[in-house]
Amino acid sequence: MYNLLKGKKGIIFGALNEHSIAWKVAERAHEEGATFVLTNAPIAMRMGELNTLAEKTGSQIIPADATSMEDLTNLVEKSMEILGGKIDFVLHSIGMSVNVRKGKHYTDSNYDFTEKGWDVSAVSFHKVMNVLYNKKAMNEWGSIVALTYMAAQRVFPDYNDMADNKAYLESIARSFGYFFGRDQKVRVNTISQSPTPTTAGSGVKGFDGFIAYADSMSPLGNATAADCADYTISLFSDLTKKVTLQNLFHDGGFSNMGVSDGVMDTFTAK
Amino acid sequence: MYNLLKGKKGIIFGALNEHSIAWKVAERAHEEGATFVLTNAPIAMRMGELNTLAEKTGSQIIPADATSMEDLTNLVEKSMEILGGKIDFVLHSIGMSVNVRKGKHYTDSNYDFTEKGWDVSAVSFHKVMNVLYNKKAMNEWGSIVALTYMAAQRVFPDYNDMADNKAYLESIARSFGYFFGRDQKVRVNTISQSPTPTTAGSGVKGFDGFIAYADSMSPLGNATAADCADYTISLFSDLTKKVTLQNLFHDGGFSNMGVSDGVMDTFTAK
Amino acid sequence: MYNLLKGKKGIIFGALNEHSIAWKVAERAHEEGATFVLTNAPIAMRMGELNTLAEKTGSQIIPADATSMEDLTNLVEKSMEILGGKIDFVLHSIGMSVNVRKGKHYTDSNYDFTEKGWDVSAVSFHKVMNVLYNKKAMNEWGSIVALTYMAAQRVFPDYNDMADNKAYLESIARSFGYFFGRDQKVRVNTISQSPTPTTAGSGVKGFDGFIAYADSMSPLGNATAADCADYTISLFSDLTKKVTLQNLFHDGGFSNMGVSDGVMDTFTAK
Amino acid sequence: MYNLLKGKKGIIFGALNEHSIAWKVAERAHEEGATFVLTNAPIAMRMGELNTLAEKTGSQIIPADATSMEDLTNLVEKSMEILGGKIDFVLHSIGMSVNVRKGKHYTDSNYDFTEKGWDVSAVSFHKVMNVLYNKKAMNEWGSIVALTYMAAQRVFPDYNDMADNKAYLESIARSFGYFFGRDQKVRVNTISQSPTPTTAGSGVKGFDGFIAYADSMSPLGNATAADCADYTISLFSDLTKKVTLQNLFHDGGFSNMGVSDGVMDTFTAK
Repeated sequence: MYNLLKGKKGIIFGALNEHSIAWKVAERAHEEGATFVLTNAPIAMRMGELNTLAEKTGSQIIPADATSMEDLTNLVEKSMEILGGKIDFVLHSIGMSVNVRKGKHYTDSNYDFTEKGWDVSAVSFHKVMNVLYNKKAMNEWGSIVALTYMAAQRVFPDYNDMADNKAYLESIARSFGYFFGRDQKVRVNTISQSPTPTTAGSGVKGFDGFIAYADSMSPLGNATAADCADYTISLFSDLTKKVTLQNLFHDGGFSNMGVSDGVMDTFTAK
Repeated sequence: MYNLLKGKKGIIFGALNEHSIAWKVAERAHEEGATFVLTNAPIAMRMGELNTLAEKTGSQIIPADATSMEDLTNLVEKSMEILGGKIDFVLHSIGMSVNVRKGKHYTDSNYDFTEKGWDVSAVSFHKVMNVLYNKKAMNEWGSIVALTYMAAQRVFPDYNDMADNKAYLESIARSFGYFFGRDQKVRVNTISQSPTPTTAGSGVKGFDGFIAYADSMSPLGNATAADCADYTISLFSDLTKKVTLQNLFHDGGFSNMGVSDGVMDTFTAK
Repeated sequence: MYNLLKGKKGIIFGALNEHSIAWKVAERAHEEGATFVLTNAPIAMRMGELNTLAEKTGSQIIPADATSMEDLTNLVEKSMEILGGKIDFVLHSIGMSVNVRKGKHYTDSNYDFTEKGWDVSAVSFHKVMNVLYNKKAMNEWGSIVALTYMAAQRVFPDYNDMADNKAYLESIARSFGYFFGRDQKVRVNTISQSPTPTTAGSGVKGFDGFIAYADSMSPLGNATAADCADYTISLFSDLTKKVTLQNLFHDGGFSNMGVSDGVMDTFTAK
Repeated sequence: MYNLLKGKKGIIFGALNEHSIAWKVAERAHEEGATFVLTNAPIAMRMGELNTLAEKTGSQIIPADATSMEDLTNLVEKSMEILGGKIDFVLHSIGMSVNVRKGKHYTDSNYDFTEKGWDVSAVSFHKVMNVLYNKKAMNEWGSIVALTYMAAQRVFPDYNDMADNKAYLESIARSFGYFFGRDQKVRVNTISQSPTPTTAGSGVKGFDGFIAYADSMSPLGNATAADCADYTISLFSDLTKKVTLQNLFHDGGFSNMGVSDGVMDTFTAK
């Protein structure tokens, strides 16, 4: 709509279906003139409808297990070939807790599950940047964004070990972002998004009630996946070149609310 | 360049001369298709070159003392007349410490000076929003931005009572932002900008050395006034509709640095 | 009970009646072996029962308007005479919003009320430290504590301009705390306390419901005034000599909660 | 000295030698009337002088690998036998980065090292609480403290993956702290301590220069290991019963400094 990403090249992780934030980002990036490669884990690709998105946006798909340095190396090399140059933007939208999937309560974690979820949800972000940094695959003033959630700062009882994974992910953004900024003029940020009814989000217990609660707490209501795509575009654009190491709340104001009138009314009317 | 603000109407406070952040914002807003009214205090207008900016951007000027509800009421009413409708964006870029100007150390404040600086630098933001809110002068999904500085969170010894004023200003953004969001779907945020060599900034003792320090600490270097204008445009645009109550660091990463290699090298080489 | 403050001398602002946090602090400080002066505004003293507390703790009372440098100077000088030396600890527990008292909504502030509330609630803390610092009235490793509330960080709609006042107060703690630490080895901190049913707190609309909400959100329940007194003692003691410039949440965990099971249950059961 | 922990029972992880913070905590806890069990990894115990500490404080030693649920289960069971009842306080002072030890730069991590360091430094805290919680081994109003560092919030370039581990650790404190508070009235906090010249800290490159920098930045200077022991005692005591889910900076004020005069002088004098 604005040509904000005209001529820019990207890699987008984590589009599964039309409910995915990454899906919406891909659609918007396409509208804004970008070209990009789509990627997801082989298993996620079987479940999803990534081909539809690829066709719609004129993109190629490169499957990659984001915990595999080999896959990621292949992804980055192939992407530069396909796109004809270095990368301008990357979206990391990957998260999964095996403990949540298997119904293990946080106080009764299975530590193999914990390790797997941490590797997929958080370390994968380090590995992606590791490959990009060491291959010097990013253009100057490129932008790397990962999606996160406020459970990294505050307790949401059903978020389980994803809270800890997101805290680790956000720390990686700062730690790696320093070297990426200093050495290659690339910015690294995380977007802390409202609870969003994606396929991944829906795995969390009582998610619908929680979405209503967050909506009632937020003066502008929850940010949707489409809103998040718009915001992500702004962070990929040249308008935000000096924003780095930040965790940016995109949540209709939730993060700075103590209590809203709406929530208070419900509470006292019990 | 992108038509991001096409058809949008605004009010821009605080452009003094071409070094001003507000000046750069006005230039960029004009490029992006906005129309707006420029305003500043009568005394500031005598020092500045606001007419040049008005001509360049096809804007009208309405002088207003931002501590005067009467002046602000006149400003908002006239602006809607001139612009032909409600307001979409407002920039508050106003700050002044009489204690700093008069050379009073923080531990030896003159409390009349303190009160005056607080009224000009912080309460003015409440008054601006008071008029806009009660006159229902903002369009839905409008955006209000005030400029602030990280001294609101951390100690910069020469920043004097401006630190406290900025803390109060940021609190107003949250407090008023809640009602503005809930009732009128308007977002309110503050941008916490790198130290910037504006006319206002230059009043602070040792400012050049401090700018060099901040630059050395920041992985992407200090954000300039022009960078800040770009970022402000993104916050006025429709890409950031669900961002509210936030204090957004725009500082090349400074805010999340403990120490950089550059600063550490200088320190140990002493 | 532990002799934690044996031989220490203090000034305690803001005890009104037995519900006051400052009252509880005085009782506990006495138990821990401290001697101190009690002070409050002349008008508050007429309403309160400060003489009872003075007798119980063997303290003298010096009335002082905390917005008056003259009164504060007299207070500090007399306190050193009475106590026989410099001061080891100070509690600032003063807060009052005229807008709240007069029923003015935040979006419709009376700015004379705003100024008065700011002066009493926030600037008074600067004035107290100004006198203490310039008179070199504090002993090395002394401790200054002010009470605050989380509305300084997050929105509580009925807290009105006290939110902004508390943000300013917390900023003063950092700004003045730097000079007090660097020059006189004195620490300055704020305690951000659970909503507490004191006479002051009760002025806020819907306070009972809000206290129940906060209690339900906090894993350990709300901290009481007596709990706060205990915590304050720890900050006056020699156990916390290197804690400074901090805003310390004392709230049963509320500040780091996104949502509790208790609140969520109430919300979904609506 | 004050009998603050009279009758309280504890478990102290991580004392290696007299430079260790855990060592100092043990000495102070003993002075304050506590009885406790000392534990460390078998390998750490061979290097250390834990027997000296055990004798001095009348404590028994139970070796445990803090990544082993079996060892931790044995530790907790044996501790309750030895101490004659449930536990009142626990100190987790465990941290180790294999990447740091092996000289791997953060941008070139060995992910097996990353996993090992994460497990030892962060997940171990979850495992400790897992055992304590499920065995109901803590008394009501017990206190669990882990030591952390501000690299979890801000970039310190040489801190490597310990930054991310500490972010994960602090998140665990909140996540598990919620359930421990809600269900068993136990508080969980982390202390974010000044850089401290312990055996572990000394492994970080350029540590001496960094300690001098932090000291120069902090208005009260760096907090020492002995200071930290005092502060930890306050958190184990009954004075802080309602403090939970907090990350508490114990750093002479460093965390809230933007720049000090001392650092600025060094910088501009280059």
